[in-house]
Amino acid sequence: MGERVIVCEVGPRDGLQIAKTRMPTEAKARWIAAIAAAGVREIEVGSFVPSRLIPQMADTAEIVAAALGIPGLTVAALAPNLRGAGAAHAAGAHRISIPVSVSEGHSRANLNRAPEEQVAEVRRIVQWVRAQERPMTVQAGCSTAFGCSIDGAVPAAKTIAMASALAEAGVDEVALADTVGYAHPAQVRALVRGVREAIGGKLTGLHLHDTMGLGLANALAGLDEGIRCFDACLAGLGGCPYAPGASGNIVTEDLVFMLESMGFATGIDLGKLIAARAILHEALPEEPLHGHVPRAGIPRTYRAAA
Amino acid sequence: MGERVIVCEVGPRDGLQIAKTRMPTEAKARWIAAIAAAGVREIEVGSFVPSRLIPQMADTAEIVAAALGIPGLTVAALAPNLRGAGAAHAAGAHRISIPVSVSEGHSRANLNRAPEEQVAEVRRIVQWVRAQERPMTVQAGCSTAFGCSIDGAVPAAKTIAMASALAEAGVDEVALADTVGYAHPAQVRALVRGVREAIGGKLTGLHLHDTMGLGLANALAGLDEGIRCFDACLAGLGGCPYAPGASGNIVTEDLVFMLESMGFATGIDLGKLIAARAILHEALPEEPLHGHVPRAGIPRTYRAAA
Repeated sequence: MGERVIVCEVGPRDGLQIAKTRMPTEAKARWIAAIAAAGVREIEVGSFVPSRLIPQMADTAEIVAAALGIPGLTVAALAPNLRGAGAAHAAGAHRISIPVSVSEGHSRANLNRAPEEQVAEVRRIVQWVRAQERPMTVQAGCSTAFGCSIDGAVPAAKTIAMASALAEAGVDEVALADTVGYAHPAQVRALVRGVREAIGGKLTGLHLHDTMGLGLANALAGLDEGIRCFDACLAGLGGCPYAPGASGNIVTEDLVFMLESMGFATGIDLGKLIAARAILHEALPEEPLHGHVPRAGIPRTYRAAA
Repeated sequence: MGERVIVCEVGPRDGLQIAKTRMPTEAKARWIAAIAAAGVREIEVGSFVPSRLIPQMADTAEIVAAALGIPGLTVAALAPNLRGAGAAHAAGAHRISIPVSVSEGHSRANLNRAPEEQVAEVRRIVQWVRAQERPMTVQAGCSTAFGCSIDGAVPAAKTIAMASALAEAGVDEVALADTVGYAHPAQVRALVRGVREAIGGKLTGLHLHDTMGLGLANALAGLDEGIRCFDACLAGLGGCPYAPGASGNIVTEDLVFMLESMGFATGIDLGKLIAARAILHEALPEEPLHGHVPRAGIPRTYRAAA
């Protein structure tokens, strides 16, 4: 049996947050159900942020409720602060992801806070979550871990220190995010090693963007270093509203094709996954859909991992 | 100093052979000069094939002559048979690349010959070239080494046997080509190892297509296994007229970005390379130009290898 790799679909959050139009709640729920039906076991379904800032996410509580009806699905949501974490918990999310920018410039633009203030917020969130009766997994995502379009290069030492501070703040998981897509494979390898030396198994995932076309090569570099959890976006939607120049996430369809071809078991049916694009296209006809495998068609030599 | 990696631009051959319109000879020569001026040191400038089959290549002798005027450039050309090899030699090419399909179906479609007949042709070409006064490097490219859109999966043992036969036939170099873009990184690693065990340093290069979006991940896998020579196409042009479903080569601009970012020295100026797209666009305005780095812009964190 192939080694298990978790593909976390973040399209309903990272993909839709910068879509030109708002995806109707009904279509979102149907889309999430289709992705789950294809075998995806973790979906970041939305974010708990003020709807005046990101109106596309105004229905996240409703969407969480709908997703909770899907058996076996880990329902994740982004929450940038204690208020959002409270709302995510009230809605019933299984996991929250808290963004923490390593670079000062992105932190100010995205969160209106200095990085160390956001680490303090993470600590407050963890304490609050631990005091609740219903458990909820807390993940912190280190944004701009590989570079920042505002501040430029981000030293590895800074990301490692940030990951250590987050682990110390008590989060369950730390992910490294290449928010603007500046990472290259040698950097991914070095940073994964460095962060793992600092925080061990608390480093779980990579969140990669494909701005420079290196997304899957970076995922391969992460795989080689033992990462077994990757965020990705159906049709490569996404970007960051506060990171100029950022483009979409790595394409879920292409990532699954690579992983399964290499013998890693994602549990995902590639044909059904590709079919889920139809709902996206129908609901957001103006949004360009990316992805090589959907365009070329699944090759006849493809064999999913057992 | 960064370790040297050779990027061989194959756009004037692989890219233009399936272009909808014919690029004028003058524009081709200007384009090749611009690529060379960006620091590319090997260019496959065309192919010596009957012009009734591929009219885009009718001016290859002229183009070779023009390219020979560029100091320090290795001028390569594709030659599928002895007649083509003779024409390439007469034109003054420094290197020829002979396509040899591993799969029977592609061999018949592309060369109208069985694979073993083409190996025999390679042997004749090598003998003929060795008998000439002016030396010319002979490379054999194993097409469909990673799978075939006609025959399906191609067993590694078949490619290894083919590479051995070609080495025995006396070629200087063997390259492995993922003609239809079916390769995945684990397969690249395994096949490079297997072929190298069989023929050692005669295995020099990889020719990758990006059909499934795995092109750069496959290049990374090759790099990890010690490959230091990669074909690529400016703007990701290309495909194979006799391989249904094949799409363009890996994008030179994105490959150079990855290599240089990782500390490998290609000698190529990325900005000048991107500027060479203008000539292509001007001459073939209908051809879609691919590439992530050109679209996103070279990020501020980019540092070329020393």
